[in-house]
Amino acid sequence: MTLMKSWVTGANSAETPFPLNNLPYGVFSTEGTEPRCGVAIGDMILDMAALETAGLIALAAGGVFHAPCWNGVMELGPDLWARLRARLTQMLAEGSEHRAAIAPYLVPQAEATLHMPLRVSEYTDFYAGRQHAQNMGAMLRGSPDLPANWLHIPVGYNGRASSVVVSGTDIRRPNGQTKAPDAEMPDFGPCKRLDIELEMGAIVGTPSAFGAPVTVDQADAMIFGYVLLNDWSARDIQSWEYQPLGPFQGKAFGTSISPWIVTTAALEPFRAPTPARERTLLPYLDSSIDGLFDIELEVSMQPAGADRATTLSRTNYNRMYYSAAEQLCHHASGGCGMNTGDLLGSGTISGPDKSEYGSLMELCWAGREPFTLDTGEVRTFIEDGDTLTLRGRAVGDGYQIGFGTCTGTILPAVKLPS
Amino acid sequence: MTLMKSWVTGANSAETPFPLNNLPYGVFSTEGTEPRCGVAIGDMILDMAALETAGLIALAAGGVFHAPCWNGVMELGPDLWARLRARLTQMLAEGSEHRAAIAPYLVPQAEATLHMPLRVSEYTDFYAGRQHAQNMGAMLRGSPDLPANWLHIPVGYNGRASSVVVSGTDIRRPNGQTKAPDAEMPDFGPCKRLDIELEMGAIVGTPSAFGAPVTVDQADAMIFGYVLLNDWSARDIQSWEYQPLGPFQGKAFGTSISPWIVTTAALEPFRAPTPARERTLLPYLDSSIDGLFDIELEVSMQPAGADRATTLSRTNYNRMYYSAAEQLCHHASGGCGMNTGDLLGSGTISGPDKSEYGSLMELCWAGREPFTLDTGEVRTFIEDGDTLTLRGRAVGDGYQIGFGTCTGTILPAVKLPS
Repeated sequence: MTLMKSWVTGANSAETPFPLNNLPYGVFSTEGTEPRCGVAIGDMILDMAALETAGLIALAAGGVFHAPCWNGVMELGPDLWARLRARLTQMLAEGSEHRAAIAPYLVPQAEATLHMPLRVSEYTDFYAGRQHAQNMGAMLRGSPDLPANWLHIPVGYNGRASSVVVSGTDIRRPNGQTKAPDAEMPDFGPCKRLDIELEMGAIVGTPSAFGAPVTVDQADAMIFGYVLLNDWSARDIQSWEYQPLGPFQGKAFGTSISPWIVTTAALEPFRAPTPARERTLLPYLDSSIDGLFDIELEVSMQPAGADRATTLSRTNYNRMYYSAAEQLCHHASGGCGMNTGDLLGSGTISGPDKSEYGSLMELCWAGREPFTLDTGEVRTFIEDGDTLTLRGRAVGDGYQIGFGTCTGTILPAVKLPS
Repeated sequence: MTLMKSWVTGANSAETPFPLNNLPYGVFSTEGTEPRCGVAIGDMILDMAALETAGLIALAAGGVFHAPCWNGVMELGPDLWARLRARLTQMLAEGSEHRAAIAPYLVPQAEATLHMPLRVSEYTDFYAGRQHAQNMGAMLRGSPDLPANWLHIPVGYNGRASSVVVSGTDIRRPNGQTKAPDAEMPDFGPCKRLDIELEMGAIVGTPSAFGAPVTVDQADAMIFGYVLLNDWSARDIQSWEYQPLGPFQGKAFGTSISPWIVTTAALEPFRAPTPARERTLLPYLDSSIDGLFDIELEVSMQPAGADRATTLSRTNYNRMYYSAAEQLCHHASGGCGMNTGDLLGSGTISGPDKSEYGSLMELCWAGREPFTLDTGEVRTFIEDGDTLTLRGRAVGDGYQIGFGTCTGTILPAVKLPS
């Protein structure tokens, strides 16, 4: 596909993350106004709430855009999602007869504050990156062998929705229990191995009923869109707590997502297959679709006071072994009801080469291989004041589908009473 | 404490679960009416929504009782919780001047359908029963030794809120991946080791801020009340899936709770200490309160068509090693924000004797010791059509604080395409 031209300034460059082909959904406010739904186009945001008030768009009786989330739109279902996208495309296309009517409702992105684009119902995190799973095994269990179930199950666990925050939110270093291998007793204090996980987040738009499974193809159609996701991780807390019931407080202090929901519709031209299966998947995971997407991803780090960020890693979402649709199918396979606003983390995305690793744990090989930033600082894990940023884009012919950034700065831990 | 007398029929017997001392909160409807807030007293339900409409109770501007959950009341905070309880006690006490005004708003429980008493924000399940942890270790890992972290951490994991249902809801046997130890490949089909877990559920009323820990004493004051909780478990699915990230689909097909929230206030006379600590807990888990409660618990099973249920187990919530307040403190210790409506499962409650075990897994010792019901049927795990029921009560001097029942019947699994 090629660039679709728009009359909006800045939307027709090959560099903008937000051409007419994209039309991602976010929640924004300007000084003195309430958070409401908006659509990014070029350097602008189309104020959907104002457009609705003006009678220029009507998706549902009573309105859906005067809300601090897109859940109301998601609940309308795929037919309305398609109608909304078609209407926006028509209104914003070069030569549109609606230009004069629509132009007053564009707000410069530079004047807007972005908020969480959805109300997260529940958050589930998966473990679908093969290289990451092998690396973690090699570091933590002394062998790159995958867990016995890994080639059969899209392994996942339930995370904490209340900790999901929008890009730009500072993250406080967690206190937690850790135990040195040779220590008699555990200790409680600031995390010493603070990490990121480079992931994509899939957002469930259409619910499934309690007790009713869905196929992979149905699951794919249930997904409203995708965001970048950083599953901040406290490796030392996690390693002491996770047996036998999995990650808990090591993953509960913050999960950042990018502010714009890029719809599955916008990503259609970038579908990519899952890799050849080393072991045939069970029939309930059969699918006729390519469930991954060709999305270039990048991680950068910038210490406090540094004048520039250093790119640590570049990889691609098409590296994953399981798709979000497969994960969602497995999630509902026993009858678990899925809801509008459920967020599924892909699992850490690491490619085969070290330059493609999606966590510091892998990049510094559990602390044994410190790395040096462009500005000279040496790092293993994250220090207070460091800013970590994820970027993502799908690159088409003369245009790109950008996700914006997913960024967060680490604040010092809460001081403990002495 | 002794029985507080009420003018409501049936509220003054030593056998009623709902004397004036209790006043538990639920959501009910009668034929042709919407679910709304009610308070159980004797054989009746006080219709709080109607009372509010009549101007006989006013807790907050705009009203809070015309709702299918108690979250609105919980959000008002502990001072209002206390004011509500005092007002209800005054209105329903023997000799109350309000009797004539209030009496028209009593609805017979026999005419009411009960619904979920809260909107569950997130569900977390813990593993705080020592006997249960030792039994599981002995059966699954060949040793009753506790996991290394168990005496230091109130071990927990995030569960699935969308699967929490009210007592009386049928539970469909889940399909899922399992793998026989000697099989080459896993299989997908109906769970063969369907189990219960006898638990208490603590309901968070007061939220905590993202990034801010709470003390155990603060956590105790945040808890609005308790319910009985049955964390239905698919043992065979769980054992194949749970490494390395914990339980997932083995726990996602249903968690039943009793319909009445028994407030912490009603349970105050029954506080019980946690047991002597084998290893001193870290200071962040220090507390000045007795966080457990003396609540007698019972599990029974009734096959389809049987004329009576068989009691399988009797135990007590005071058997636990960690209290809900300690669990909540640990949950927030890294900065995880807790919300109104969060539900914390205690973990399976098993006493030291086999007659006190809180799961079938323990009662049939992983299938090796089938047991016989009073009606002659032999069981290890749950068969289709079986009804499992939990009961709980705190017994005072001539009265009891009852929880009602937490019951569910197992339906056959969804048929797979052949």
